[in-house]
Amino acid sequence: MTVRKPAFVAVDWGTSSFRAWLMAADGHVLAETRGPEGMLHCATTGFAPVLTDHLAKLDAAQDLPIVICGMAGAKQGWVEAPYLRTPTRLGALHDGAQRVDTPGDVRILPGIAQVDPAAPDVMRGEETQLLGVTEPNFTGLVCIPGTHSKWIRIENGNVVSFTTYMTGELFSVIAQHSILKHAIEHEAASPAANDAFRDGLQRAIAKPAGLTASLFSLRAAQLLGFQQRADGATRLSGLLIGTEIADASARYGTQSVRLIGAGALGQLYATALAQAGFDISIVDAERASQQGLAKAAIHLWGATFT
Amino acid sequence: MTVRKPAFVAVDWGTSSFRAWLMAADGHVLAETRGPEGMLHCATTGFAPVLTDHLAKLDAAQDLPIVICGMAGAKQGWVEAPYLRTPTRLGALHDGAQRVDTPGDVRILPGIAQVDPAAPDVMRGEETQLLGVTEPNFTGLVCIPGTHSKWIRIENGNVVSFTTYMTGELFSVIAQHSILKHAIEHEAASPAANDAFRDGLQRAIAKPAGLTASLFSLRAAQLLGFQQRADGATRLSGLLIGTEIADASARYGTQSVRLIGAGALGQLYATALAQAGFDISIVDAERASQQGLAKAAIHLWGATFT
Repeated sequence: MTVRKPAFVAVDWGTSSFRAWLMAADGHVLAETRGPEGMLHCATTGFAPVLTDHLAKLDAAQDLPIVICGMAGAKQGWVEAPYLRTPTRLGALHDGAQRVDTPGDVRILPGIAQVDPAAPDVMRGEETQLLGVTEPNFTGLVCIPGTHSKWIRIENGNVVSFTTYMTGELFSVIAQHSILKHAIEHEAASPAANDAFRDGLQRAIAKPAGLTASLFSLRAAQLLGFQQRADGATRLSGLLIGTEIADASARYGTQSVRLIGAGALGQLYATALAQAGFDISIVDAERASQQGLAKAAIHLWGATFT
Repeated sequence: MTVRKPAFVAVDWGTSSFRAWLMAADGHVLAETRGPEGMLHCATTGFAPVLTDHLAKLDAAQDLPIVICGMAGAKQGWVEAPYLRTPTRLGALHDGAQRVDTPGDVRILPGIAQVDPAAPDVMRGEETQLLGVTEPNFTGLVCIPGTHSKWIRIENGNVVSFTTYMTGELFSVIAQHSILKHAIEHEAASPAANDAFRDGLQRAIAKPAGLTASLFSLRAAQLLGFQQRADGATRLSGLLIGTEIADASARYGTQSVRLIGAGALGQLYATALAQAGFDISIVDAERASQQGLAKAAIHLWGATFT
């Protein structure tokens, strides 16, 4: 029987969530802790106390090195880890890590920026997932659904270009704050919800430039008795995801795509991408973060792991 | 000198506003009153007391007939005036008016519905503006900017099809509730705001299917120093209006358009439509409502006007 011992701590520190894992040298997860203490929370409490609390929950030895990805490295974060610029080699992310002026060896990985006035874009956290799910010389397309969905073109292990869609956030603000709140039920989906999702998707893929009209149309269809309120949420989701996929398909081509997904949203994207003609391979989002942090840790401290 | 005497009262009763005019038989406005007592307000106070108050402000004789357009005729309004269905003759709007069971002669004009499962749509209030600004056998395209912008195709005096865009409402919810609230200043526009509007417009017209990416891009451009926060609001406005115009242009063709506009928003649309290649004639939105209500009043009671 192999007994793995703790080699480092891996942290995914987002805008509104904190997750940390006690890791073995081979990337195996030995323990985990999570909480709502994201960057926004830490703006008032500070970052160090939150980390200390979670390290205690992991029962981590004080001398273990710690590697962090995500918003902790933003300008408004703990210590800024300036963006690497496209094109940039995923395998060299650790070169941009910033050491935090705190006891122990704590490093924050950088995000990636596309410094192009015609297509400015930024990511923090997703670059580590990309590192986690790609081989050193990977060439291909990756999709990471979420609040701000990302599509990333990687060539020979380099991030060459990417596009962020406000899909998830638009769903929230439209469902909560627009007239469509009257067209949405937040309870369990109806039996016909899958059909509504596919309908929304098809409509958006056929007319991606018509999104702002399709949104009102969703409300009008209910007023006129063509559609049910119970299907509103999945139809809205279909419209927004379909618009994203249609545009990404026009930019990057309809091809093989590696989908970094989780839970229900991952399933919706898998359905939608297949319907749009993509050839999909799915990898788990949390595992992608763990593996990316582990690869960076091995670059940073691998020689000292025993 | 001609002395015009009051012949009827015209009311535009919207979701969140009330406007009424004391009118002469020839459509001349003799007095006006306005307030925030729209349909939402009246849900608690009732409609009749609000009307009575405003009639007193107009010093209107008790026997004057009253014609109303807008949300007072919605299902959640005062008395439902069921939608006419496309194609429908604007000159026959008054045939669908509902008389209110209240002292005096009070009638509410109907809205128009497009009862088409592939493109369901509804309007209430805009149909009266259309009546106001078109000749009996008008053929052409009309654009009515607003919270829910409308584009209407009219043939020989009949509304044959229309499309509603959530442009104004999306501007509000995105500017107030999404991450773009950090990219928007609500104070006076910067000297470069006009350029920012045109830039947003151009980007949207070139890539109307990319709206949900262009929105995030607006934020990223500021983070990377390419754009200024002071220009955020006009740029967002350009993106949303440009997306609307690009889609409407694809549906209805780039041609002559009658723009029913008002104030700053009307100016933005005039700029945008010209940039997109439309040939525009502008008519004032409030005058359009007055004239439409007057035309309906003349149909309803013209024989009795002295």
